[in-house]
Amino acid sequence: MSANKPGGASARQGEGRGVTPRSLDYSTWYTDVVTKAELADYSPVRGTMVIRPYGYALWENIQKDLDRRFKETGHQNAYFPLFIPQSFLQKEAEHVEGFSPELAVVTHAGGKELEEPLVVRPTSETIINHMFSKWIQSHRDLPLLINQWANVVRWELRPRLFLRTTEFLWQEGHTAHASEPEAREEVLRILQLYRDFVQDMMAIPVVPGRKSDSEKFAGAVETFTIEAMMGDKRALQAGTSHYLGQNFAKAFGTQFQNENNELDFVHQTSWGVSTRLVGGVIMAHGDDKGLRLPPHIAPIQVVIVPFIRSDEDRARVLPIIDQIRQALPQIRFQVDDRPSLSPGFKFNEWEMKGVPLRMEIGPRDLDKNQIVLARRDTGEKEFVDLDRATHALPDLLEQIQAGLWEQALAFREANTRTVETYEEFKAQLDEVGGFFLAHWDGTPETEAKIKEETRATIRCIPLDSPQEPGRCMVTGEPSKQRVLIARAY
Amino acid sequence: MSANKPGGASARQGEGRGVTPRSLDYSTWYTDVVTKAELADYSPVRGTMVIRPYGYALWENIQKDLDRRFKETGHQNAYFPLFIPQSFLQKEAEHVEGFSPELAVVTHAGGKELEEPLVVRPTSETIINHMFSKWIQSHRDLPLLINQWANVVRWELRPRLFLRTTEFLWQEGHTAHASEPEAREEVLRILQLYRDFVQDMMAIPVVPGRKSDSEKFAGAVETFTIEAMMGDKRALQAGTSHYLGQNFAKAFGTQFQNENNELDFVHQTSWGVSTRLVGGVIMAHGDDKGLRLPPHIAPIQVVIVPFIRSDEDRARVLPIIDQIRQALPQIRFQVDDRPSLSPGFKFNEWEMKGVPLRMEIGPRDLDKNQIVLARRDTGEKEFVDLDRATHALPDLLEQIQAGLWEQALAFREANTRTVETYEEFKAQLDEVGGFFLAHWDGTPETEAKIKEETRATIRCIPLDSPQEPGRCMVTGEPSKQRVLIARAY
Repeated sequence: MSANKPGGASARQGEGRGVTPRSLDYSTWYTDVVTKAELADYSPVRGTMVIRPYGYALWENIQKDLDRRFKETGHQNAYFPLFIPQSFLQKEAEHVEGFSPELAVVTHAGGKELEEPLVVRPTSETIINHMFSKWIQSHRDLPLLINQWANVVRWELRPRLFLRTTEFLWQEGHTAHASEPEAREEVLRILQLYRDFVQDMMAIPVVPGRKSDSEKFAGAVETFTIEAMMGDKRALQAGTSHYLGQNFAKAFGTQFQNENNELDFVHQTSWGVSTRLVGGVIMAHGDDKGLRLPPHIAPIQVVIVPFIRSDEDRARVLPIIDQIRQALPQIRFQVDDRPSLSPGFKFNEWEMKGVPLRMEIGPRDLDKNQIVLARRDTGEKEFVDLDRATHALPDLLEQIQAGLWEQALAFREANTRTVETYEEFKAQLDEVGGFFLAHWDGTPETEAKIKEETRATIRCIPLDSPQEPGRCMVTGEPSKQRVLIARAY
Repeated sequence: MSANKPGGASARQGEGRGVTPRSLDYSTWYTDVVTKAELADYSPVRGTMVIRPYGYALWENIQKDLDRRFKETGHQNAYFPLFIPQSFLQKEAEHVEGFSPELAVVTHAGGKELEEPLVVRPTSETIINHMFSKWIQSHRDLPLLINQWANVVRWELRPRLFLRTTEFLWQEGHTAHASEPEAREEVLRILQLYRDFVQDMMAIPVVPGRKSDSEKFAGAVETFTIEAMMGDKRALQAGTSHYLGQNFAKAFGTQFQNENNELDFVHQTSWGVSTRLVGGVIMAHGDDKGLRLPPHIAPIQVVIVPFIRSDEDRARVLPIIDQIRQALPQIRFQVDDRPSLSPGFKFNEWEMKGVPLRMEIGPRDLDKNQIVLARRDTGEKEFVDLDRATHALPDLLEQIQAGLWEQALAFREANTRTVETYEEFKAQLDEVGGFFLAHWDGTPETEAKIKEETRATIRCIPLDSPQEPGRCMVTGEPSKQRVLIARAY
C-alpha cells in the first residue's frame, strides 16, 4: 500500500531516508530536509504549505522567545482583521504599487458578490492606521507600541517551502510616536532585538544595515535589515524594521495634539520576522545528514535512546532515565523506546531531525556506570560517568550552541570578500560566491546594472562598518562606505 | 478635536465612562463593556473586529492554559493553509450544505482570475483530511492528535463583538484513531478538558451534553457541547467536540492498514473553542460597573494605586510597592501612578476593566503600617497589615476566583427549572427565562415546533442527568431523559 502514497508517509516507513548531498544540488537538499525531517509538507493550494508538528514546535520556540523580548520592551499584542477594504491599499501610493501584484482578493461572500472587494492582508499598515486614527488623540496616547502574530498572504510565482510561500506566519510590529527621533530610535531598537535573537537563539551571525532606496519596503522612508549567510553562501534577509515617517499617518489622518496643543501627524515604524526564519536555520546549519538545530530553539534538545532487550533491562534502565530527566526539568527530552526499530534507524532519524544531543543508555553502560553522549554538531561521541550526567548535559548543550555559532561565523568570514573592481567582483562571484564588500556610488542606476548583470543585489549598507572613502567599483564615482553585495534568497 | 473622534478614543478621555445598566438594555450593556473596557473595537469591514491589547491579553491567557492542557494530553500543534480549494468542501455532502452560505471566496490572486476559486477556511476538516490521507499509512501512525490555533471566516449577517464575528480566532483539534471506541473516548476526553478549563479558569459552570441531530456539526455523527448561562439567563455554547465517524475519511480516502493487514478508514474527531469565550466571561460575570474578571485568567490580577503628592511620599511608597511585587512574582501586577488622574477616576477605570483586586497605598497607610485592598467581585474594602500583604493578596485572589464561581453557580441554579407541560414551559420562559429541564420525544418535528413557537432551542441532552422516564412536554410521547432547553446566543 505504501507504494501508492507520496512523500512524508513513505519516509516514515524508512524508504529513501537520506537527503540529496548539498554539494550535488543545494536546492533539492533543502527540500529533502524540510520534508524528510517532517518540518513541512506541500499543500494542495499552489504556493502554500502545511507546517507539520515538528516544524511548528520550532516556530513556537521562536515565537515564545521573541514575544518575551517584545513585551520586555513595552509592546502589547493585538489582533487586526484579515480582510482589508481594497480602497485602503490605494491610500498610500507607493504601498499599493508595491503590493498590488501579490494580492489575493475576496470578491464573493455569504453567497453574494461584495460591493467592494476585500484584500487578504499582505501586511497591515493600512488597517492599523485606520484604527490608530481612532485611538490616538493626544501626545499622552503616545508612543503606541503594538505587535500582531498573524498569517499574511502574498501571491508567489516561485514558491519555496518556508522561504517564499503564498501564505506565511509572522509577527508585525506597528508603532506610533510623537517625534521622528523617537520613531527612529524604535526602528533601531527592534533591529537590535532581531539581531540579538537571531544570533543568540538561532546561532546565525547577521549583518545589520540599511536597505538602498530601491530595496526598501513599499511606503517606508527607510528600511533596515539583518542579512544572514546560508550554507550555499547566498544571503537571506532574516528580518526588517522600517521607518515609515508620516507617510501612512498622512494617508489615514493619524494625528495627535502635541504638547503645544498643535495637531501633528504621528511618526511610525513597522517591523517583522516570519516563518522564513525556519528556512534560515535549516540552511545556516544543516548538513548532508539533515538538520542541525541550535539547542536554544530545538523542540527536542536531548533524545534518549535506551538499549532494552528484556524486562530486566527495562527495570534497570528506565528508572535511571527518569532520574536524569527529573534532575533536569529545564531540558526538553524525548525518550525513543519504540520497540520495533533498530538503534541505527533511530540514530538516523534523530540526526535528520537535527536533535542537538543523543544520549544512549543500556545495561552494559550501567555496568560501567556510564552513558554515551553523541553531539549532532560535530558527530563526536563521548562516554560520561553517570554521576556527571546532570552536569554534562546542560554543558554540552551550551557547547553545541556555541559550536554552531562559531562554525556559521567562521563560514561567513571565510566567504566575505573585499573587492575593489567590478571585474574582480564578477569573477569572484561566479567562482566562489559569498558576501562582497564593495564601494558603490549610491545611484539606483548602478544598483540596477549590478543586479541585471550579475543577479547579485545590494543587501544593505552595513551599520557597523567604518566610514571609508573610496570609489564605486562600477563607475569610479566617489563613495563613503562599502556596501554588502550578494546573491540572495 | 476629540469631539470628532468616535468610540474608544473619547472614552479614554473620560467622557461617558459609565455603561448602560444591564437591567435597562442587556445588549447595549454588553457592547458598552466591550468597547469601554477596551477589549475590542469595530473594524471597517462589516462583521469583523479588532481585538485590542487588553482583550488580546485575556485571549492569550486562555490560549496558554488550554495549550498546556492539549499538550499534556498528547496533542501537537501544526498549521494548515488558510485557503481551501472549493472542490474540497463539496466532498462531504452535509459539510458543504452546512457551510456554503457562510463562505468567503477568493476568485482573483496575483492579478489574475483563479482557475478554481479558493474558500477562506470556515473550519479545516477537509484540508486536514487531505493531508492525513498522505501521512497515515498504518495503525502505527495512529492515533494522530493534532491541534491548530488559527483564524477562520464565516460570513455573519448579525454580527456581535466576540460572540459572532465574520472572522474569529480559535483552536481546532483534529484527531484520527484506529477504532470507534478510541475516537469516542477522545471526544469525551476533550469535552471534559473544556469543562474543566471553563469551570476552573473562567469560573463559569457549564452543562456538558450531546446535541440533538439537527443541532450537530455539519458532517459529524455526534456533537457534544458545554452550555453556560449568561447574566441575562440565556445560554452560550462555549465549546464543542465532535465524533466525525468515518465521514471525512471516506470522502478523502483516509485509510490505514490495521493490525490484521486490512485496509480500514480512520475514525475521527474534531473540537474547538474560540474568542467567543471572551464574550462568555463578560456576560457570565460582568455587572453595571463593567467587567469582573476571574483572577486565573485576568491580564492584571492586582492594580496598585499609590497615593503620592510629593517626592517625599514617592520615596516612602514606591519601595514598599517594589518589595511586595518582588515577594509575589507569580501575581500579575500593574502600578497606576499616572500623575494627572484622580484616584476616583482610576478606581472607575480599573473597575470597568474588571481587575479582581485593587491595592491602595499612601503615606497615611504607611503611618498605620497597613494597605487597603478592594475586591472587584463584592466591592468590599479591607485594611490589611503591611506584614500580611504577601499572604493576603494570593489568598484574596483565590477567594475572588471562588466567589465568582459561587455567584455564577447560584445564579444558574436559581434560574434552572424543571417543567412538565408545554404551557408551563412557555409561560415561565417568557416570564422569568433561564434554563429548563423538560422531557422531549426525541423527534426533529417537536424540536422544530419548540424553536419556532418560543425561539428557545434544545441546548443539549445532558450527560450527567439521571435516566428518568417521562412524557414529552409537547406531544406526550415517552421520553427517557430530560433535555436542557433555553434561548441562546
